[in-house]
Amino acid sequence: MSRPPLTAIASLLPDTVPFVGPEAIERQTGIPIRARVGANESSFGPSPGVIAALRAAAPETWKYGDPESFELKAALARHLGVAAGNIAIGEGIDGLMNLIVRLYVGPGDVVVTSHGAYPTLNYHVAGFGGRLVTVPYRADRESLAGLLEAVQREAPRLVYLCNPDNPMGTWWDAGEIERFIAALPETTMLLLDEAYGETTPAGTLPPLDVARPNVLRTRTFSKAYGLAGMRCGYAIGEAGNIRAFDRVRNHFGVTRLSQVAATAALADQDWLRAVIDRVAAGRERIAAIAADNGLEALPSATNFVAVDCGRDGAFALAVLQALGNRGVFVRKPMAPGLDRCIRISVGRPDDLDIVAAELPAALHQAATTLP
Amino acid sequence: MSRPPLTAIASLLPDTVPFVGPEAIERQTGIPIRARVGANESSFGPSPGVIAALRAAAPETWKYGDPESFELKAALARHLGVAAGNIAIGEGIDGLMNLIVRLYVGPGDVVVTSHGAYPTLNYHVAGFGGRLVTVPYRADRESLAGLLEAVQREAPRLVYLCNPDNPMGTWWDAGEIERFIAALPETTMLLLDEAYGETTPAGTLPPLDVARPNVLRTRTFSKAYGLAGMRCGYAIGEAGNIRAFDRVRNHFGVTRLSQVAATAALADQDWLRAVIDRVAAGRERIAAIAADNGLEALPSATNFVAVDCGRDGAFALAVLQALGNRGVFVRKPMAPGLDRCIRISVGRPDDLDIVAAELPAALHQAATTLP
Repeated sequence: MSRPPLTAIASLLPDTVPFVGPEAIERQTGIPIRARVGANESSFGPSPGVIAALRAAAPETWKYGDPESFELKAALARHLGVAAGNIAIGEGIDGLMNLIVRLYVGPGDVVVTSHGAYPTLNYHVAGFGGRLVTVPYRADRESLAGLLEAVQREAPRLVYLCNPDNPMGTWWDAGEIERFIAALPETTMLLLDEAYGETTPAGTLPPLDVARPNVLRTRTFSKAYGLAGMRCGYAIGEAGNIRAFDRVRNHFGVTRLSQVAATAALADQDWLRAVIDRVAAGRERIAAIAADNGLEALPSATNFVAVDCGRDGAFALAVLQALGNRGVFVRKPMAPGLDRCIRISVGRPDDLDIVAAELPAALHQAATTLP
Repeated sequence: MSRPPLTAIASLLPDTVPFVGPEAIERQTGIPIRARVGANESSFGPSPGVIAALRAAAPETWKYGDPESFELKAALARHLGVAAGNIAIGEGIDGLMNLIVRLYVGPGDVVVTSHGAYPTLNYHVAGFGGRLVTVPYRADRESLAGLLEAVQREAPRLVYLCNPDNPMGTWWDAGEIERFIAALPETTMLLLDEAYGETTPAGTLPPLDVARPNVLRTRTFSKAYGLAGMRCGYAIGEAGNIRAFDRVRNHFGVTRLSQVAATAALADQDWLRAVIDRVAAGRERIAAIAADNGLEALPSATNFVAVDCGRDGAFALAVLQALGNRGVFVRKPMAPGLDRCIRISVGRPDDLDIVAAELPAALHQAATTLP
């Protein structure tokens, strides 16, 4: 019996997924996760005000969320000092990436990114038939020079830059980002992913310039705000580009409670500052744990730390697996050169106690497996 | 200054959106909505068990939701008597429609639907460059004969059927749907939308047949389960078709709380049955209100009732606007012939009291405006 054919693009897509979730890993391995420090979630949790707002709004879930996210956009506009018309709300940055790629990348169109950068961007580019051109990291940073050279050579529709970077945690200063932006062709859209923007040193994020029509910046409530499970991110950009999201987005897609939670999270900047301080302390703690084991932690402007396991990718993978066998969920970069690292999210002190307790044995096990 | 161009498809999309939300209507008109009976939401609300589960899970929102929705799928599989591999979870039926159109409809490919059926389907078809071929309703029902004739003529990639129907509330019996399915070409996918399936008379929904590779059925927690704001729907189909969703979906897109809420909702079938009874009573109440005003209500298998305003589309639109001016939010069909009706969702008795109180004056105002 024949069947309805998939489109030409869909028929060629692989069955792989960008990330396997921690619950799925637990089901596959049968090992309960004791320290959930692999997905750059914030185990400090959302603000108590968010939890109270969610509980108060629970009986209202029979109503569709506001498709215009009016209140959240207004609050973000005040917070950011831009107009509401410069903000698009979406189902996390992943959801916004889908829309951005869909708007700007047709079949065969080129997207420039770094080899080893966020896999979900690549997933969406493939999903719309785009062609990825990748540039290697240099010294564990996304290479602005390399990206620019590729942009000038390829004239892509889109170039992706994550600052500070995931998965390495490294970053560029605002001035360097601004010079990169100034050098871009007017017809190449920069997707500047600032998912980890809240935890950066001052002077990392360039001032918002919503007059520029070739930059879209994405931020999220999933990381420092502690709301990964609520799927709420936002894009900041020139008003005409922001209006274009309305052509393709799922208008009722951001849940009512997600809007409630994000609005309450934004209102509690004290909680955010406290989390940022705890993230900074956690980064130092991870660096100390690494040093205690003879390993080097990379500097990080994010809520995670890449730890150089001191050998090759196979060894770091063995360390990751040994940690997993001990209930410690971490992830790791996979691109050559970067893959010598594992990536540990800043968790609560209890979480990092477990990491400290299990890392020596995991390293020993990896060294035994790969002598 | 030039700017990054949109793709060929995106550049041609209109700026219109399928639906304006009730909050947006309030902002536009400045009139508070007193009876929210326009979006087929369930003002009976979700089950108390859902509210309790949401409140308990609120502190866990820092964790991404399970991207495989394992527990919800397992519960649905048990409930429906199919395998978990026959179920895809998505951000409401709207989100699933996006994926289904994206998987099966490329630029220029034909989709057959009824003229006046769910506009969001049309939005997605346009969004992926598909070509809509529409068939008129007959006697206020989607025309199975007309759809089949169009399918045989056009050999479309997709045909859409909503049973029971939105916006008219009418329905076909299971046997007629089964005959329709049996007559479809193997290479045309039927998107059988059963958003309102819970409130239908027995014998309306055909038994699930997940061996058939040219039918995808969609259902939702937004309607009878009272969770429109949580964006959680599901598709039921042949395992290979269900796996294809993994190629294009936003893997972490269904929020943690949406999964919690949907799982709890499914577990409380007593609440669902009570809601179904209240919906049936509400339909009778709306029919009585219509009769009291000299109008005829159409028979309905859904949680709303189409009320024939007795004249043309302009008159029904004037009635809708007059109701809106009185704080009564309803919607209406727009296609010729259907547009003589307004569509009133079954609300709580208090909501329908407001409808009963305001409809006479709204009819009078409309008749004065359009004598």
